[in-house]
Amino acid sequence: MTDTPPTPPLPVSAADFRAGMALLGAAVNIVTTDGPGGRAGFTASAVCSVTDAPPTLLVCLNRSASVYDVFTANDALCVNTLAPRHEPLSRLFGGKSLTEERFASGVWQVLSSGAPVLGDASVAFDCRIVRRMPVGTHDILLCEVVAVQRHPEVGGLVYFDRAYHRL
Amino acid sequence: MTDTPPTPPLPVSAADFRAGMALLGAAVNIVTTDGPGGRAGFTASAVCSVTDAPPTLLVCLNRSASVYDVFTANDALCVNTLAPRHEPLSRLFGGKSLTEERFASGVWQVLSSGAPVLGDASVAFDCRIVRRMPVGTHDILLCEVVAVQRHPEVGGLVYFDRAYHRL
Repeated sequence: MTDTPPTPPLPVSAADFRAGMALLGAAVNIVTTDGPGGRAGFTASAVCSVTDAPPTLLVCLNRSASVYDVFTANDALCVNTLAPRHEPLSRLFGGKSLTEERFASGVWQVLSSGAPVLGDASVAFDCRIVRRMPVGTHDILLCEVVAVQRHPEVGGLVYFDRAYHRL
Repeated sequence: MTDTPPTPPLPVSAADFRAGMALLGAAVNIVTTDGPGGRAGFTASAVCSVTDAPPTLLVCLNRSASVYDVFTANDALCVNTLAPRHEPLSRLFGGKSLTEERFASGVWQVLSSGAPVLGDASVAFDCRIVRRMPVGTHDILLCEVVAVQRHPEVGGLVYFDRAYHRL
């Protein structure tokens, strides 16, 4: 018998990583913007609380997304966290629809930043983008929260194991 | 009648922000480490996918947390995403218990990084910390995923509106 070197672990493929991430449940949000670059919005689960001093969250944005240039030109951003009734709106903002079609559904308001706020979101975090950090294919957008609108009574919507779940 | 200037919006307090974040449902994870600084683990919901090229996630860590120094000394980190059966383990790792008490519950393994891996987690992302970015009271830890272990059959556990929910 000869000594064989230990087998190095196989690297994690993009498919392995995505199959794993499908098992990490997450709230479903529509992230919107408006400003000099125009209006845009997309469905996102990669949203995360960072710190409450100052109140800050982050959003991860694919640099190849159709909305990327608009979010780059603007500094207003709103995270609209969806309720069970918003499942069709989630599909609309996650698909290939045009901006005008997207905002034709839902009741949209403005709070402080100027970004579209979904009136009956479970919670809306109206923000200013304060820093952008490229990581791989994505930018991490650090956002300071300038206004919060809550509707605890409408419930929550999460995505887990490639399906919607109502809370 | 005299013209009055528009009232500036009130700043968002830490309490407002936290009440809002309570309505953004999130998976419950136990984040662990081991290495030169010793072993540690804590319950966290501030975990987020960043990019699949290279497979990368982030974890937000309070610099005043009891485990902070250990995570600063080590570069191995595992995100163990919990199943419904792990609710007691979530409370244990989120409370004031000592490290030895925490790891006395649960079945722990090692994959690639050396950080403790919960054997029956819904999914475990074994990682190396590649970058640390301070933001307010927290550090964002950028972590490259070096191994993934999935158990889709065990279900998921999310925290929403200050309560656990089983998926």
